[in-house]
Amino acid sequence: MSDKGYILKESDLLPLSIGAALLGTGGGGNPYIGMLRARELLRKGASVRVLPLDALPDDAWIGEVGGIGAPVVGVEKIEEGGECFRAMRAVEETAGVTMSALISAEIGGANALEPIIAAAYAGLPVIDGDGMGRAFPEVQMTTFFIYGAKAEPAAIADEKGNVVVFKKVLDMFWLERFARHTAVDMGAAAGFAIAPMSMAFVRRAAVPGTVTQALDIGQTVLDARAKRQNVIQRIVEATGAKLFFTGKVTDIRRELIGGFARGQAIIAGTDAWAGSEARIAIQNENLVLWIDGEPAIMVPDLIMNLELETGEPITTEMLRYGQRVGVIGLPVHDLMKTPEALEIVGPKAFGYPDLTFTPLATKPIAA
Amino acid sequence: MSDKGYILKESDLLPLSIGAALLGTGGGGNPYIGMLRARELLRKGASVRVLPLDALPDDAWIGEVGGIGAPVVGVEKIEEGGECFRAMRAVEETAGVTMSALISAEIGGANALEPIIAAAYAGLPVIDGDGMGRAFPEVQMTTFFIYGAKAEPAAIADEKGNVVVFKKVLDMFWLERFARHTAVDMGAAAGFAIAPMSMAFVRRAAVPGTVTQALDIGQTVLDARAKRQNVIQRIVEATGAKLFFTGKVTDIRRELIGGFARGQAIIAGTDAWAGSEARIAIQNENLVLWIDGEPAIMVPDLIMNLELETGEPITTEMLRYGQRVGVIGLPVHDLMKTPEALEIVGPKAFGYPDLTFTPLATKPIAA
Repeated sequence: MSDKGYILKESDLLPLSIGAALLGTGGGGNPYIGMLRARELLRKGASVRVLPLDALPDDAWIGEVGGIGAPVVGVEKIEEGGECFRAMRAVEETAGVTMSALISAEIGGANALEPIIAAAYAGLPVIDGDGMGRAFPEVQMTTFFIYGAKAEPAAIADEKGNVVVFKKVLDMFWLERFARHTAVDMGAAAGFAIAPMSMAFVRRAAVPGTVTQALDIGQTVLDARAKRQNVIQRIVEATGAKLFFTGKVTDIRRELIGGFARGQAIIAGTDAWAGSEARIAIQNENLVLWIDGEPAIMVPDLIMNLELETGEPITTEMLRYGQRVGVIGLPVHDLMKTPEALEIVGPKAFGYPDLTFTPLATKPIAA
Repeated sequence: MSDKGYILKESDLLPLSIGAALLGTGGGGNPYIGMLRARELLRKGASVRVLPLDALPDDAWIGEVGGIGAPVVGVEKIEEGGECFRAMRAVEETAGVTMSALISAEIGGANALEPIIAAAYAGLPVIDGDGMGRAFPEVQMTTFFIYGAKAEPAAIADEKGNVVVFKKVLDMFWLERFARHTAVDMGAAAGFAIAPMSMAFVRRAAVPGTVTQALDIGQTVLDARAKRQNVIQRIVEATGAKLFFTGKVTDIRRELIGGFARGQAIIAGTDAWAGSEARIAIQNENLVLWIDGEPAIMVPDLIMNLELETGEPITTEMLRYGQRVGVIGLPVHDLMKTPEALEIVGPKAFGYPDLTFTPLATKPIAA
């Protein structure tokens, strides 16, 4: 095994989960339970190394794993812990390969922790990167699939012992359909693993360094809290994000449709935005921010809601009437902004035919 | 390969499909398309032997295959032909075994033909028997599952090339749930194959001789038609069935719910039943017959509707307002009437808690 990168310490798990929650852009599920699971495994002696993208040879097999379901359910239904591990083993058996490392489908939310938990079970390292650089609601919305990863074989496992293998699937959209409905059957929360990818491919297709990025963001938050600094201000300074809106939640609507949490939040402006109104469209994650009817941030760029006082990331299922929030925007990685990527994760792909993706400036802008 | 039994002739396919439609008790899907597929394969040189239950050694592996979906859709959506074959191959690969013969999940309806089509593709014989002796709407409702067949691995395949493997499933109810929803995703018609069964087990658990029984019933119908005899009368004489009602369909309701066709038919009595009213509850198949509010036949015994003039079996999706029908009842095989079987296929299992199964007399009764 490579000795590059670093071994995750127990003290890394809290900042990692805070940073992951922020990069979850309101979705991806709350990483808290996963953090407890990972902590338990590290305390029992498991060791998980975080490897940079240049650590393994081209022909090493990498397994992508993550939880699949609806985050509204994820809060209530606690995973047993071995779901992604069992799904990954089923993929190994079906494909006839052995994985050298695991990688996250999405760094945002609970799926930042899932590969770490599965890696702890399997005795494998994780790759410092992921397939989104954020969170997205559907399995085909990864740089891996966008840049040509095979859709088969994939597998899904629940906490009860059921394992379903998608042995032959025409494409990633069929895979999403089969896996999503099987996840709903399994109680809307399950572990998911896709086909083995070569390290050569992962090096080209992964959003690089996102495990470390999440860890650093979380450390910034914890450090600002310890020093009683303005957390949102510190995040903006450290990440190149921009504060787009502050206000109070005046309306929040949610529906659980086919395993997805859909809805929207209305925020009445305060401070510099007094008199303005913001609207955020949600499908598990925050998709589009409008301010006074004008689109201000849109997928795939990141829209993040934080509690105004504490800087705590607010997942969409935790949004409540009366909450005081700050909305910040962060440019997504370039791999997510190519024409082929925008076909899968741009505003039109999410059902907004009238919106043409206008990227956030990639240089920091003072709020 | 055993030389017991007989090789299916092209001229056997029409009577087999007529008998299968009758044993389908209104469901199981129309066998017509399957008959054409099988005929095409036989004409191209395929040869399929029908083996009695004593032909193969105890340790031979037998594969159960059948179509899965909703018959309302089956009429419109024509299978490509290789669905069950591909599902069976996926089960072989996952289980690491080679099948020696195939057997039908249900002799009633289209699934009488599916193992013959898959056997023609695979160059295998079929076993003279099935798992129901009729048709039922759910995959766990077979004598195989009732008497202990393993639920894993099973597989489902569509006409487009998708193959999903149920590698680990807790029980047959989980299998039914996963497979049914995957079938709905696949367009509500797909090929299904369950775990390999040993011939020793199949000998104990299969309803014996039902391929030949369907063939004989169909031959009786064709013979009666050729001789311009009363077809219903000839069926009653030849099978030990009883005529329970004749009348005219006055109301028919259907809903497609989660891949199932549910509904009921109301029939106003004619002839000996003038002034009486019959009601038939449907879930893909005919479940319960009430005459003037009193239960007269109930699952698992067979309720079969035939066109009064022609004796043509009427599948539930073909029931129409104004049709003149004869309703006959046939006792199901004893393997379907044990206490453990009635838990799965008795009236209570179909949502009639107030009905206690009262079997039809097994001796022929004059109508």
